[in-house]
Amino acid sequence: MTMRFLRYHRRMQPQNLTELLSRLWHGADYNYEQWLEFPDVLHEDFRLMNLAHCTAMSVGIFSWAKLEPREGQYDFRWLDALMDDLHGHGIRAILATPSAAHPAWLSARVPEVQRMNHLGQREPHRGRQNFCRTSPVFREKVTAINTLLADRYKDHPALLLWHVSNEYGSTVCYCPTCLADFRRWLAARYGDLDGVNRAWWTTFWSHTYTDWDEIDPVDPSNNGLLLDWQRYNSDQVLDFYRMECAPLRQLTPHIPLTTNFMRPDVGLDYWKIAEHIDIVCWDSYPEWHVHDDVQTACETAFYHDLHRGYKQGQPFYLLESSPSQTNWQPLSRLKRPGMVKLASAQALAHGAMGVNYFQWRQSRGGEEKFHGAVVAHRGGENTRTFREVVEVGEMLAGMPALAAARTPARVGIIYDFENEWALGLAHLPRKVNKEYQATCIEHYTAFWRRGIPVDVINARQDFSKYALVIAPMLYLLSEETATRLTEFVRAGGTLVTTYMTGWVNESDLTHLGASPLEAVWGFKLVEYDTFGADQAGQVMCTAGNTLDLIGSARCGRFADLLEPTTAEVLAVYARDFYGTQAALTVNAYGQGKAYHLGTQVDEPFLGAFYEKLTRALGLFPLLTGLPHGVSAQARQTERQQFLFLMNFTNQTQTISVEETATDLPPYGVRIVVKDVEII
Amino acid sequence: MTMRFLRYHRRMQPQNLTELLSRLWHGADYNYEQWLEFPDVLHEDFRLMNLAHCTAMSVGIFSWAKLEPREGQYDFRWLDALMDDLHGHGIRAILATPSAAHPAWLSARVPEVQRMNHLGQREPHRGRQNFCRTSPVFREKVTAINTLLADRYKDHPALLLWHVSNEYGSTVCYCPTCLADFRRWLAARYGDLDGVNRAWWTTFWSHTYTDWDEIDPVDPSNNGLLLDWQRYNSDQVLDFYRMECAPLRQLTPHIPLTTNFMRPDVGLDYWKIAEHIDIVCWDSYPEWHVHDDVQTACETAFYHDLHRGYKQGQPFYLLESSPSQTNWQPLSRLKRPGMVKLASAQALAHGAMGVNYFQWRQSRGGEEKFHGAVVAHRGGENTRTFREVVEVGEMLAGMPALAAARTPARVGIIYDFENEWALGLAHLPRKVNKEYQATCIEHYTAFWRRGIPVDVINARQDFSKYALVIAPMLYLLSEETATRLTEFVRAGGTLVTTYMTGWVNESDLTHLGASPLEAVWGFKLVEYDTFGADQAGQVMCTAGNTLDLIGSARCGRFADLLEPTTAEVLAVYARDFYGTQAALTVNAYGQGKAYHLGTQVDEPFLGAFYEKLTRALGLFPLLTGLPHGVSAQARQTERQQFLFLMNFTNQTQTISVEETATDLPPYGVRIVVKDVEII
Amino acid sequence: MTMRFLRYHRRMQPQNLTELLSRLWHGADYNYEQWLEFPDVLHEDFRLMNLAHCTAMSVGIFSWAKLEPREGQYDFRWLDALMDDLHGHGIRAILATPSAAHPAWLSARVPEVQRMNHLGQREPHRGRQNFCRTSPVFREKVTAINTLLADRYKDHPALLLWHVSNEYGSTVCYCPTCLADFRRWLAARYGDLDGVNRAWWTTFWSHTYTDWDEIDPVDPSNNGLLLDWQRYNSDQVLDFYRMECAPLRQLTPHIPLTTNFMRPDVGLDYWKIAEHIDIVCWDSYPEWHVHDDVQTACETAFYHDLHRGYKQGQPFYLLESSPSQTNWQPLSRLKRPGMVKLASAQALAHGAMGVNYFQWRQSRGGEEKFHGAVVAHRGGENTRTFREVVEVGEMLAGMPALAAARTPARVGIIYDFENEWALGLAHLPRKVNKEYQATCIEHYTAFWRRGIPVDVINARQDFSKYALVIAPMLYLLSEETATRLTEFVRAGGTLVTTYMTGWVNESDLTHLGASPLEAVWGFKLVEYDTFGADQAGQVMCTAGNTLDLIGSARCGRFADLLEPTTAEVLAVYARDFYGTQAALTVNAYGQGKAYHLGTQVDEPFLGAFYEKLTRALGLFPLLTGLPHGVSAQARQTERQQFLFLMNFTNQTQTISVEETATDLPPYGVRIVVKDVEII
Repeated sequence: MTMRFLRYHRRMQPQNLTELLSRLWHGADYNYEQWLEFPDVLHEDFRLMNLAHCTAMSVGIFSWAKLEPREGQYDFRWLDALMDDLHGHGIRAILATPSAAHPAWLSARVPEVQRMNHLGQREPHRGRQNFCRTSPVFREKVTAINTLLADRYKDHPALLLWHVSNEYGSTVCYCPTCLADFRRWLAARYGDLDGVNRAWWTTFWSHTYTDWDEIDPVDPSNNGLLLDWQRYNSDQVLDFYRMECAPLRQLTPHIPLTTNFMRPDVGLDYWKIAEHIDIVCWDSYPEWHVHDDVQTACETAFYHDLHRGYKQGQPFYLLESSPSQTNWQPLSRLKRPGMVKLASAQALAHGAMGVNYFQWRQSRGGEEKFHGAVVAHRGGENTRTFREVVEVGEMLAGMPALAAARTPARVGIIYDFENEWALGLAHLPRKVNKEYQATCIEHYTAFWRRGIPVDVINARQDFSKYALVIAPMLYLLSEETATRLTEFVRAGGTLVTTYMTGWVNESDLTHLGASPLEAVWGFKLVEYDTFGADQAGQVMCTAGNTLDLIGSARCGRFADLLEPTTAEVLAVYARDFYGTQAALTVNAYGQGKAYHLGTQVDEPFLGAFYEKLTRALGLFPLLTGLPHGVSAQARQTERQQFLFLMNFTNQTQTISVEETATDLPPYGVRIVVKDVEII
Repeated sequence: MTMRFLRYHRRMQPQNLTELLSRLWHGADYNYEQWLEFPDVLHEDFRLMNLAHCTAMSVGIFSWAKLEPREGQYDFRWLDALMDDLHGHGIRAILATPSAAHPAWLSARVPEVQRMNHLGQREPHRGRQNFCRTSPVFREKVTAINTLLADRYKDHPALLLWHVSNEYGSTVCYCPTCLADFRRWLAARYGDLDGVNRAWWTTFWSHTYTDWDEIDPVDPSNNGLLLDWQRYNSDQVLDFYRMECAPLRQLTPHIPLTTNFMRPDVGLDYWKIAEHIDIVCWDSYPEWHVHDDVQTACETAFYHDLHRGYKQGQPFYLLESSPSQTNWQPLSRLKRPGMVKLASAQALAHGAMGVNYFQWRQSRGGEEKFHGAVVAHRGGENTRTFREVVEVGEMLAGMPALAAARTPARVGIIYDFENEWALGLAHLPRKVNKEYQATCIEHYTAFWRRGIPVDVINARQDFSKYALVIAPMLYLLSEETATRLTEFVRAGGTLVTTYMTGWVNESDLTHLGASPLEAVWGFKLVEYDTFGADQAGQVMCTAGNTLDLIGSARCGRFADLLEPTTAEVLAVYARDFYGTQAALTVNAYGQGKAYHLGTQVDEPFLGAFYEKLTRALGLFPLLTGLPHGVSAQARQTERQQFLFLMNFTNQTQTISVEETATDLPPYGVRIVVKDVEII
Repeated sequence: MTMRFLRYHRRMQPQNLTELLSRLWHGADYNYEQWLEFPDVLHEDFRLMNLAHCTAMSVGIFSWAKLEPREGQYDFRWLDALMDDLHGHGIRAILATPSAAHPAWLSARVPEVQRMNHLGQREPHRGRQNFCRTSPVFREKVTAINTLLADRYKDHPALLLWHVSNEYGSTVCYCPTCLADFRRWLAARYGDLDGVNRAWWTTFWSHTYTDWDEIDPVDPSNNGLLLDWQRYNSDQVLDFYRMECAPLRQLTPHIPLTTNFMRPDVGLDYWKIAEHIDIVCWDSYPEWHVHDDVQTACETAFYHDLHRGYKQGQPFYLLESSPSQTNWQPLSRLKRPGMVKLASAQALAHGAMGVNYFQWRQSRGGEEKFHGAVVAHRGGENTRTFREVVEVGEMLAGMPALAAARTPARVGIIYDFENEWALGLAHLPRKVNKEYQATCIEHYTAFWRRGIPVDVINARQDFSKYALVIAPMLYLLSEETATRLTEFVRAGGTLVTTYMTGWVNESDLTHLGASPLEAVWGFKLVEYDTFGADQAGQVMCTAGNTLDLIGSARCGRFADLLEPTTAEVLAVYARDFYGTQAALTVNAYGQGKAYHLGTQVDEPFLGAFYEKLTRALGLFPLLTGLPHGVSAQARQTERQQFLFLMNFTNQTQTISVEETATDLPPYGVRIVVKDVEII
């Protein structure tokens, strides 16, 4: 049964997606079913939702045991009441399918729904998201309950959006069903075992497979195997998701579907999954006030831009965020006054279509009872948190036109999951801190600090809309992507690459012969050095280079030693025995240029590099003279620009907008709406 | 069979308890059976015991394989000889039951006596205390051997005390017998599954149970389940202990029973177990000379007071201590000259009735051969250690009247195991270093430094005998305890509470509505902040407050933000956005007062607070002007006070006793006996 | 079947060993079979090998799946071609047996060839060296393929040396076959269970065994058991090796046999295994440029001397080394110019007969594709690495006479595996950082810095050829070794021992009565202290001591407190309460002297001690006035001395050879050949 959905054809866009995208939304996860014995609490909840300008609540997320208290005995009465109550208060429902937490009776009756570890032991029932995704029984039960939900609420006026399951992860299962499915997936990918052996270079250490059943994804010395196992598990999640969607699509073709994403560290290829959802939703929990807030803000901006990117710029829904603290991070501090609004505004600035919280009301028991909520254990509307949530509601209600506005970016930074996995698995001369994601964010930071909009983009997409494409540490580089990058430069684009780029193809095999980017780069890579945490190198600009870049920088992590052929050397190393070799080059290729940063330079140097480069490319900041910690982001329609000016410091900052100095208070935001004419 | 002892009625006090409590004892763990092939060694042992003034030796602790070398073939001849030899040398026996280490043949014949892990695998036979406590076969074998021991030695004149097993821990077993027993325990506690579901708030994440067999105590997301599993395992140990006792009580009703406790970190509710033992014994291994000795001394004092508290002030027996080093701590340094006597005197000062060592003689092989002992591998009586042990023996022999003296404390600090477990399990905005025990010790330190006696007390006990009760971090607060605390204040008592108090009830459910202490406190808790390791807040006293407290303090860990209703604000926060909110309050309630410390203040401030408070309450130090590192503790009878003055520094310290300056050498102790008249 | 080889008689020396030892060799591991589809690559390989002066290549190491693609279907054609190609290019073959990585089909067909964990679960097939060494089927399959290899190539002119398996480790297996074999091994060692119980002191904690089947090597509290389990596993590897050798010895009696060793941390008693190999080979991967290079050089020198010691001074083969980086160490930096030659010269200086690399060519896929190689993914002969390898080839080709030269050492430092294991298992007052190996290297360093040759020697060997024997931390000291050390001193030798020496016998039982070295030492050990990482003691020389040693030192780790009887005190402690007790003693015994260092002194003091001692003993440096970081090592024949002068710093160093100042460039080496006359 598994995988039958993967080749599913691109379907029609759900009718109600237009409505969904035409407004800004506000709401929270609501666990109505926990309080059925406390009617006063429920009554108070709806009064407070209206006070807080809530328009869309996520419901039913973990309700399976309540919907099907005994196998086959369903009880929808409480959900009927909830849907009606929402409708009665003018609030829409983001209705979840309940697969994320299945009842204990199901694991007890059918042990095979539980995952198996690599030694063949079934994991005990516990927590949530603990099921085997290929279990036929589990899939049947999910299909049954999803069908009943879709059939029951297909015409309910409150129904806005399907929230399929919750926070899918990629935890693996080694049961026979999953392994058989993996082997079928491999057969589909490689044709036969010869193809597998060739792709994984199994002559190494006698790893040749002679029978499909010999393939067991537990060999840490077989990178190709583990990379494919990771790909398979991501695809398995996608397949499970699509299995969940089938009855929803069939019975409610007008209702959009989504599932909530998380930060890009969970082992899923969200680029691929995003093709099968209607809107991108994500759950963002920055650790405000724990680290440097400016750094936290910049990272959060990167994640927002990434989520906007998943569907090529279509607004995303911030579906979970904490209006106060969390209770699962190492440390979670009280949000400083203004922070809830600022964090919500930041999401909007980067393309959000709505802001929801986890959770509406703190639960009385269980693991998340001390997770922050709009409504705390005590205090109701008389809390600082509630008042700030009301302000967010007012902000959202106050600018309906933002819904149609989009982000104007001409810079694209590639973020690639397969590359991240392959790098993570790679056995390199430096074992720790490869820092793929951190490196992408380092490059992103140069733009964020300057108020130049950036798209975070897919390596598999068309690059022609960008003036500048940055591909940090693109270790895994297929011939196909190399060709598209080459074409991009030839046609006039500017490409920036770094150390450790293009080392292997999609099977983690090194490219034979010349690197696929060698012509574009205009150099040969001859050696690469590494630096320990307490070691550093140095680079120094060459006199009179064409980018007009001056000065020197500390460098670290990795150092490509380059032998230029046609490239111009912009900077050389200034330490160690390779102290005069090329560290930063540019090569004119076709109508465009390819820059290569052979080592990780310090932030001032990287900033200066992009400063010169963007100026040369005519990529101008939204606002000049931004103080440190103030971010400028814009969305625009054909007629209006919404300029968000956000202060992520705990000091008042003075900015100048259209020649008028204005103060942004600590953690303050100002949204400037201007009429513009976009040509 | 399990649990049938738990409702056992309170029995008569054993006849010989009075004798036991009327003397001071001295001795060690003695592994006679390891040296049967070395008669000269045994002969030398008894000579040395007499030299060292030994009066009570612990014997037979790990002797099962020697007593029952083959199943059902018992051999008591060597133990007969040992008991007779002890008697012949005027020494009494603390005779152990041998359950702590069962023979390999038992595990080999009956695998079910071994524990099972949570994946259903039997743990291999190894170490000690590695049995399943509900195994019927294991219980039968223990009953059989305990019965034989009791029957054989019931009239032996050496027999002083039963040492039941050794250092019970709470390591869990997931075998079917244990799980069934746990479910019966739950049924007894909650009546039915509805009760369980309600208590554990199982609507959260669809955790509802529909059958008892679904309950598997491996779900880290179900706090209520894990808290009850911890309670159950403590009760299971108690039940096992009582099963062990049954034949001893029946055949030797005159002989007292005990089992040796450890530091309060082993997962047992010693308050509950203490109800079923006749005297409290404990094994104390402070890490002298490894950390700050003054801090080590203060912590050790706390543990001594806790063990005195377990039976409401009755003297405890220091049943294990090292006369030199240990071999299981990360680092164990040689005890500096005087330290053995000082550490022994400290135990006496805090209520000990005897001082024993682990171990009498270093063994030749096995894991503990390099653990310190009275008799080392080489040296016999000609070692520094042996000479210091002789001095301890002389000290004990020199003050028989101390046996009847008790500690005069009017301050009680609550230490609660269920609270510790619940806090440990709680998912809070700060994951690490909740520091419940450390916080109790921080409050204790203020008194220890000032020479004001303290009892460490049970949250379930009557508080009326105390002038001051301190309840640090009493996160888990049942309505019942809240009521007793309220009554205590109403009747004129003074209560001190801290941040994170009274958040949940005994099922780890948050209290609905107002906090049960809100009226006593006179404030509402509105928010709480947390601090990372490198972050700090500040508090500042209000001008002219009624406690006359002045100055400011750094604060950390947690910060309650309070909204006073009737309470007086003694100190406010002086940093962060809540920089003027109440941090320390006092509320007059009935005849008493309730103080609340909303944050963890630094030691000088906490000391100043208790200085003012104890002065206001008329709680005076035993000796004023104590130098740093000198501790003053007292025990008294109706006629005499024994004042222990102990120098825990490596410097000579000068103290003034009754207007005479006197020097305490490094690690020196002075015991001043005064005639007093207690009204 | 297992173990039948252990009592195998000492056989004749293989005829071709003489040839092997008469030359210096150069080569690399060559994975020809990975490139069969790329004939151009293979063609280029042989051309480059000749360019690099390669004379011996290791082949077939992981080729089982290629040699036996399906069970029983063998294919030697590619290996025939390889052997012929090597021969055709004048290169010899170090031909491996392929057991180190067995094919997946074997694990799939016979699960028992996989190891079992201590809970009875079979480990999955993965990585390499993952088989059960007692599996009868595995042994049959290995015997079969080894027989075929030996038979096929017995007369091939390229065949130089058998490379049996690869890097045997000691990972344990708990399957019934292994456990039964272990119990038979114990029966052979101890006769009966009484012997076992006695040796392991099982009366402790009721650990007495009453049946062989009760013995399960998983009890961390039974040191004797775990020490024997470690010994057994080392013997099991040896037995497996000898099983592998049987057909090779039978069919190719003229060909020498070896297996490649690693650093002495893998759990094998290489002293014992070395008795059954013809030449010692080892794989050395120092972390150059990551830590202090001088320290790295000294440690590497120690390992080289240890490997030269395994066969009592016979040259060893450096069979693996990286010509550039590795990809399995935490950090591996580019080798600075000269480093490949310097590291190769260092091996030669300490007794190498050849220098090989891992690997010839970087593989295209698999775990080691980014491990350094002579031929990199790109670059061929036009790389810095290739050029430096050529220089090494020229150096080797340039001094054929070195092959016959041996190291002239009169100092022996004992390094004992059983002691290392016993110390590792021992539960001492200091749990961490016992540092046995580091301590041996600390003592070694004093000689390395001074250019005084040292042998690293076996505790079980004859000491009479040495003037000075050093036995650091010889915790496990059998009566037999104690007797040989005593005789050595009595006969005029000088012995240096340290703290923690002679505590236990070969069964980890403490010696009863006096220490076996007490008479030699002339003192009694009365107590021992330990120091934490941030604690230190001090020692101070006594005035006018006979060694003329002056000054004081910081000391740490451990401190023996000694009570001299006949010994002279050279230094006392100068801190803590034992501040006047003996710390360093010398005792005249018979014709010799025994020095004892009671504590770990700092490096300057240890250096000064050995400076005085070697001068007193007439042990002179090869060259005086060596700058820090320059090492002088010598090999000599009856006619010539080869003096290696090696600069392990990144600065030019000036040395004076025969009164002429000469410069050694950074990482430079100079080899001075002098005619000498050895009497």
